Amino acid sequence: MKNRSYRRFDEQFSIDHDTLVELISLARYAASGRNMQPLKYFLSSEHDLNEQIFSTLTWAGYLKEWPGPQKGERPTAYIIVLLDHDISDHFLCDDGIAIQNILLGAVEKGLGGCILRAINKPLLSAFLGLADRYEIIDVVALGKPKEKVVITAVKDDGDIRYYRDENGVHYVPKRSVDELIINQ
Amino acid sequence: MKNRSYRRFDEQFSIDHDTLVELISLARYAASGRNMQPLKYFLSSEHDLNEQIFSTLTWAGYLKEWPGPQKGERPTAYIIVLLDHDISDHFLCDDGIAIQNILLGAVEKGLGGCILRAINKPLLSAFLGLADRYEIIDVVALGKPKEKVVITAVKDDGDIRYYRDENGVHYVPKRSVDELIINQ
Repeated sequence: MKNRSYRRFDEQFSIDHDTLVELISLARYAASGRNMQPLKYFLSSEHDLNEQIFSTLTWAGYLKEWPGPQKGERPTAYIIVLLDHDISDHFLCDDGIAIQNILLGAVEKGLGGCILRAINKPLLSAFLGLADRYEIIDVVALGKPKEKVVITAVKDDGDIRYYRDENGVHYVPKRSVDELIINQ
Repeated sequence: MKNRSYRRFDEQFSIDHDTLVELISLARYAASGRNMQPLKYFLSSEHDLNEQIFSTLTWAGYLKEWPGPQKGERPTAYIIVLLDHDISDHFLCDDGIAIQNILLGAVEKGLGGCILRAINKPLLSAFLGLADRYEIIDVVALGKPKEKVVITAVKDDGDIRYYRDENGVHYVPKRSVDELIINQ
């Protein structure tokens, strides 16, 4: 319940490699379809590589006037989720399960993050020097959150787009439990 | 770390509808791609409907001689995860995130469950009386676990198939953190 998607961070707060490894040790416990465990992880906590990764990402589609976090507010670590095609060509919902373990672990460490899917995959693959067997699936951006994110109810107009107020507070309209359960 | 995939339950232990609603209230907090929240949920905690749902499921592909939990050890509740095509035709990794919230919540309540994807979808859709807009994505089986599930290391032969010993203990070989991280 404490975990939110964060897109602005305190870039003075660095995250070390060992912290990322601890988060992968949580992802390791995730259920996996047919227990294949075809997902692998590339970790980045170095500034220059972080900047390269950042350049391949598109942020927050609903915030039209916001191009993404500016210098000083960018993620200080990334976990790139990869499908290892030498193991399987399918991963079902494995990535969601594993990433949720990662993000819940991050929150317990006082960190936060955001799942990104709008990725220039060929460019990122080149930056990371990935072998052909690895397909980029998701990017998890991580850092020390520097924004307030508030869950609100979806209004009668049904608009689910997140938005920010004049103070930069980020609001996320969530459907009610009654709307989510079809046989309530 | 406490959450495992359980397939045998104490069928004397029933789960009430309100408990399932509480689990959906956790799924509600899950991140969703473009915040679309296209997933809906059908809840079952009634014996007769549970039996119908059970009849549409295939269990534990690696346990060739085990057709699934026998009477007395079956799930006492189900959460059917549906894609609402009136909202979106895509759900990215939303189901994995939401289901992990559900299962971690279940573990905190002393329950446990298993994600099933081998589903006779036309039959289950008919049993549930689903409108055309709803596509069945996953079935989450829930109950009071009545089996021991142990994580082990994948051996040198790379075999990731889960197995049971002569006492019925269920073992799940998990890849090491070193194998999961490609730039360790």
